[in-house]
Amino acid sequence: MKFGGSSLASGERLQAVTDLIVAALDRGIQPVVAASAMGDTTDALVELARGLSPRPGGRDYDLLLSTGEVVSCALLSISLNERGIPAQAVTGPGAGIVTDSRHGQARIEHIDPRVLHQLLDRGITPVVAGFQGASADGAVTTLGRGASDTTAIALAVTLGTDHCEIFTDVDGIYSADPRLVPRARKLETITYEETLEMASLGARVMHPRSVELAMRHKLRVTVRSSFNNQPGTEIVAREAIDIETGTRVRAVVDDDDVARITVEGVPDAPGLSHALFEPLAEAGVNVDIIVQNLSHQGATDISFTTGLEDFDRAIEIVRAVAERVGAAGVTWSDEVAKISIVGIGMQSAPGVAARMFGTLAAEGINITSITTSEILVTCLIDEDRLQEAARALHTAFELDN
Amino acid sequence: MKFGGSSLASGERLQAVTDLIVAALDRGIQPVVAASAMGDTTDALVELARGLSPRPGGRDYDLLLSTGEVVSCALLSISLNERGIPAQAVTGPGAGIVTDSRHGQARIEHIDPRVLHQLLDRGITPVVAGFQGASADGAVTTLGRGASDTTAIALAVTLGTDHCEIFTDVDGIYSADPRLVPRARKLETITYEETLEMASLGARVMHPRSVELAMRHKLRVTVRSSFNNQPGTEIVAREAIDIETGTRVRAVVDDDDVARITVEGVPDAPGLSHALFEPLAEAGVNVDIIVQNLSHQGATDISFTTGLEDFDRAIEIVRAVAERVGAAGVTWSDEVAKISIVGIGMQSAPGVAARMFGTLAAEGINITSITTSEILVTCLIDEDRLQEAARALHTAFELDN
Repeated sequence: MKFGGSSLASGERLQAVTDLIVAALDRGIQPVVAASAMGDTTDALVELARGLSPRPGGRDYDLLLSTGEVVSCALLSISLNERGIPAQAVTGPGAGIVTDSRHGQARIEHIDPRVLHQLLDRGITPVVAGFQGASADGAVTTLGRGASDTTAIALAVTLGTDHCEIFTDVDGIYSADPRLVPRARKLETITYEETLEMASLGARVMHPRSVELAMRHKLRVTVRSSFNNQPGTEIVAREAIDIETGTRVRAVVDDDDVARITVEGVPDAPGLSHALFEPLAEAGVNVDIIVQNLSHQGATDISFTTGLEDFDRAIEIVRAVAERVGAAGVTWSDEVAKISIVGIGMQSAPGVAARMFGTLAAEGINITSITTSEILVTCLIDEDRLQEAARALHTAFELDN
Repeated sequence: MKFGGSSLASGERLQAVTDLIVAALDRGIQPVVAASAMGDTTDALVELARGLSPRPGGRDYDLLLSTGEVVSCALLSISLNERGIPAQAVTGPGAGIVTDSRHGQARIEHIDPRVLHQLLDRGITPVVAGFQGASADGAVTTLGRGASDTTAIALAVTLGTDHCEIFTDVDGIYSADPRLVPRARKLETITYEETLEMASLGARVMHPRSVELAMRHKLRVTVRSSFNNQPGTEIVAREAIDIETGTRVRAVVDDDDVARITVEGVPDAPGLSHALFEPLAEAGVNVDIIVQNLSHQGATDISFTTGLEDFDRAIEIVRAVAERVGAAGVTWSDEVAKISIVGIGMQSAPGVAARMFGTLAAEGINITSITTSEILVTCLIDEDRLQEAARALHTAFELDN
């Protein structure tokens, strides 16, 4: 049972989550609990650190951020014990979570489950701090924002549990963002692959790495609300979905956390893309839609999109590269957005992409760039047309009802 | 260099403390830093826990409270590194601080200094989280409120440093509380013994255990402000003070954090005091001034004082004992206060206690109970006369100038 920050944002919420855990125990389930930091705790810690260092990072910063999850786990365990449930808060390192030493974006290398097994054998419910582990040299590491989901899935896989419940502040995974598309519906089931694409698109359903891990181990995962008793959305294997008759497009995903950067007038020579994208990759900048114009008089324009979080770093790197390779200039816009349709079997259904372009064209929405994968089509459009685009596509692909 | 919570209460204060550490390094000193939690952090964590459990304690609660110091150390280290000073935040367990397993009031058993030596050998300034350690089984423990001083002194003793500076929000140790006695003066020097008595009386100069530890190892300690450049108060060995000519009373100490509990009509039989005070000691209730009236018709009254923090627990225990031994009843008052005079050589100077009683009498202040030690006289008085008593005694013992 994994609880996100909004599920733990207050003493009242901690009580409600305690109720959920007690109810599971009453049903004969022995849960392992993983918890995020309470509400905005992590943001507050980030802000404190940024007041002292413009770009905090590394070992001390990870130690700092790791305290948020320790606080929520300790409180949750205190609350469980108060209700007569033997429980114990366990830090990420204490739970045997060993990571590499890439502070701020560490990867779990393995989990030594002995401490958790010892607790479970003694009938004690472990409450494990998400988002953190320790590198081989004992330094506390963090797994990146939102990675408490990864902790939960990794624990479930390691301990061989048959189910992982991700409790959040929405009822499950939706066919579109309900704030943007009033007709969005909660999906009863969705495949790992679709969830992964949606998560990677920033749909904030689950952390992409956690979905990947669950998919690899075919772990049964349910995304549901800690605020009510609704059944949530079950994430299932592709085999479980009837592809022939199933709706081909399952969801419309919007993302306005996007900036486009263009390097103009790049002399067209071999290795230029490498010169640009290698330093971006090294700096950990996630690059998304890449478009290179046809060469014109020996020069070309290269555009790509990146998340707003990475924008400052990206611009700094791109400017340096542009100067080195003798590009004409660098331009950018953060008034762009991505609109995507996601669905397995999309590839085998002809005309899905065409219907998407046609729908947007009928609304007079201009498409700047396009990317596609087996189960995904993404268009870059103007940010101020995002809501219209989402609603039109939701209707066009028969998701409204 | 130990910094208290008020010295670290904001980003601005963290910067000021960073300046102090940088200045020490510039003077050729290699400090080891110990830090308390920022401002009211610990109180906020206590409040959160009390919202979930009326009397939180034990392992989870210690883990919870330990996060406050980890946060301030991580931030301080981030700030030092930003200023070009190699530094690293270290938790209490990470610094090798091994304690017994009495959660909430653990004692340091030993410190394994290897990690700190390794950091110092590499020119890295350790920033150690005060107030915490780990028991032999790896559980995080806390040393009790205010015990970051103890962490600092224990580290200084273990590492063989020649000086420990306790940075706080006052200029040093005063001849009385300046809020109560406007003529109170900062003392340039004071003995370990006097500091210990004052600390035990709740003068909030330093944690009593830390003073004891410094005394045992004759560690040079300075209490000074992190808010200015004043030299502070140096705590010295008794031998360094000229007893013959020195002022016999060094300070007046007030304490209104006191409640008096009286068990009335206790049948006068052997073992009654034991029956009363044994369970109080077991519950960790600090009992101070004990007064037993002369037996009257086979029954007696027993009064004692305790801190307000312990009051609820004390009353509960005392009521149970009173019922068991057939006492007539239990009464109490929290409108009492302690006023004390402290000074080495007091014993060898006749008439000090008499002058104290006379001074209070001349002010019309009634004394309920009295305790004395070699260097201390304490009177229990009405709380609303505390300020008059403090001022009168400060003048009577020639501390005003």
